[in-house]
Amino acid sequence: MYSAVIDELIEKFERLPGIGHKSAERIAFYILEQMSGEDAERMAGSIVKAKKSIRLCECCQNLTDESPCSICSSSKRDKSVICVVEGPEDVSAIENTHEYNGLYHVLHGALSPMDGIGPDDIKINELLLRLTAGDVQEIILATNPTVNGTATAVYISKLLTPFNIRVTRIAHGIPIGSDIEYADKITIIKAMESRQEMK
Amino acid sequence: MYSAVIDELIEKFERLPGIGHKSAERIAFYILEQMSGEDAERMAGSIVKAKKSIRLCECCQNLTDESPCSICSSSKRDKSVICVVEGPEDVSAIENTHEYNGLYHVLHGALSPMDGIGPDDIKINELLLRLTAGDVQEIILATNPTVNGTATAVYISKLLTPFNIRVTRIAHGIPIGSDIEYADKITIIKAMESRQEMK
Repeated sequence: MYSAVIDELIEKFERLPGIGHKSAERIAFYILEQMSGEDAERMAGSIVKAKKSIRLCECCQNLTDESPCSICSSSKRDKSVICVVEGPEDVSAIENTHEYNGLYHVLHGALSPMDGIGPDDIKINELLLRLTAGDVQEIILATNPTVNGTATAVYISKLLTPFNIRVTRIAHGIPIGSDIEYADKITIIKAMESRQEMK
Repeated sequence: MYSAVIDELIEKFERLPGIGHKSAERIAFYILEQMSGEDAERMAGSIVKAKKSIRLCECCQNLTDESPCSICSSSKRDKSVICVVEGPEDVSAIENTHEYNGLYHVLHGALSPMDGIGPDDIKINELLLRLTAGDVQEIILATNPTVNGTATAVYISKLLTPFNIRVTRIAHGIPIGSDIEYADKITIIKAMESRQEMK
């Protein structure tokens, strides 16, 4: 029972991921009651601008406003390693460690037969095309340790057999700073299996 | 480590209530990867339009795109009763019951000395002005059963003493459909105190 304009605003936010009806209401009232007119305009402008200027990097398929993206075109990055991830947020998480200096490849999803997502629905062909140049020596498969992420990693590793390239998978184990007693069974099994010699 | 345009979009959503950095990222990627260009434009348009057309009803102070609002200007509503609430979402909740036929008054907050919110910061004067016409016979105080909401109800009821008006407070008690064993102590005490004769 709001005016149609408010209902429309609530409905727009309700369609975003992770936002239910109550949260959408709260956001709409925040915009209407607390935000200045200029801030609201700026927010709307931001959506339109991002949507218009952001596209996929022709090389790594990450979201970018310049193609090739700043990572692919950087002379400081090691072009012999490609880290394959499911989404742009994974690139961000790895970049934030400031430890990895290679390139990325963003699949935009993982294989999921249940949802009808096959090899042609994610950026696997684009990855294979990048290998034809012959500079790449290692592919790190950093898809998520879920059923779909693991299936995707296995599928890609098989595809890569004909190429003479080292294919690795990021390690799974007990996260640093957490308690073993709270880790799930599969994580503990993986951590035991991947145990390493103490130096 | 995103392009500046993406960072800006994430930052805009991060400022909304109930949205942390991770959720803002997820929303930004949803807009960039899943939404069509037209849908994004429509969402942006909705924000600008709502912000421009929505204002406070001159009478009940609810958010509206026409003033007086549809409730205040309706000939079918009982103009002798005003239900005082903290926010527009409370009006919506009560309207959804389809049982109340009086008018509303939206305070836009509750008294909160700790946060420096005094009587002049919420729409109490506007409520008193509405009583000068002399049509109102009852004020229902439906502020939330919190410390601030209750303090606001008590404050308004004292202000209304000079007027010859019935002042009531919505009942507090065990919510319908819930278990007494899970109710908090204060609710149980209130429910016992407000007990009524079985008919």
